[in-house]
Amino acid sequence: MADVETKEERMILVAVDGGEESMYALSWCLKNIISSNSNDTLLLLYSKPPRVAYSALDGTGYLFSSDVMTSMERYSKELADSVMEKAKRVCSGYSEAIKVETMVEHGDPRDVICEVTEKIKPQLLVMGSHGYGLIKRAFLGSVSNHCAQNVKCPVLIVKMPRH
Amino acid sequence: MADVETKEERMILVAVDGGEESMYALSWCLKNIISSNSNDTLLLLYSKPPRVAYSALDGTGYLFSSDVMTSMERYSKELADSVMEKAKRVCSGYSEAIKVETMVEHGDPRDVICEVTEKIKPQLLVMGSHGYGLIKRAFLGSVSNHCAQNVKCPVLIVKMPRH
Repeated sequence: MADVETKEERMILVAVDGGEESMYALSWCLKNIISSNSNDTLLLLYSKPPRVAYSALDGTGYLFSSDVMTSMERYSKELADSVMEKAKRVCSGYSEAIKVETMVEHGDPRDVICEVTEKIKPQLLVMGSHGYGLIKRAFLGSVSNHCAQNVKCPVLIVKMPRH
Repeated sequence: MADVETKEERMILVAVDGGEESMYALSWCLKNIISSNSNDTLLLLYSKPPRVAYSALDGTGYLFSSDVMTSMERYSKELADSVMEKAKRVCSGYSEAIKVETMVEHGDPRDVICEVTEKIKPQLLVMGSHGYGLIKRAFLGSVSNHCAQNVKCPVLIVKMPRH
């Protein structure tokens, strides 16, 4: 039973991407899985676009100036910071007592989530069902499907209710 | 937070098939999701093989006698009863206080699970990752994948740790 057993330390990995779906998944997890008297730690994981996506050569073969590269890197960092701030606000909205850690990695979310899960071996991986935009998902398949098939720990996929 | 919010009534649907994986998923759910002071109801769902799988014509074109059909139906019912008994023992091993209901339906587990989920709209669907044997899964794909893609509620897929 959760109220007896949650004294065990649990690491719960939540993949966040700033989209409404992943924030809903985080809220659902806080409301339904995390209990305040537990030793749970929430690890929020965000995948920044892989560096190759804005490599020094653009599509036309022109070199980006180092200024452009620096701006892109800064934008990417600001985006990651803003996603993490948003996610942390969602957590503190439930309770200030929740232990929250954050991790930002470069790469395709499918690879990043699987690699981090393999490495830190959480008790549970939580994800929204859509980790990409519509177009990208059509080509690459759903992030959550890929991860559910490949990680070894329990996976919770939370879909937003459609009204 | 779970200890505040679990006063809400939650219906948690757990697909069971008698296999070790689905019983592990049930245990994991009891240990990690269900709290004793909650109003949670666990609905255990078992899919009996569709009746067509042992229709009156066997592979050689011979008609099964009604005796054979009756035996098969009885065997199928006994199997369902035995799976449900096993699952209920897993639940009562955690707490006698847990509200447990059972449901047995005829059909392919993929269809049965999706249809029942659509109908009763549980707060969470819990499944092991393997609902078929190896051979059948190779042809039909994984039950959990199919359901994760098709149901609208949050889905928890629990894999057994491989040692």
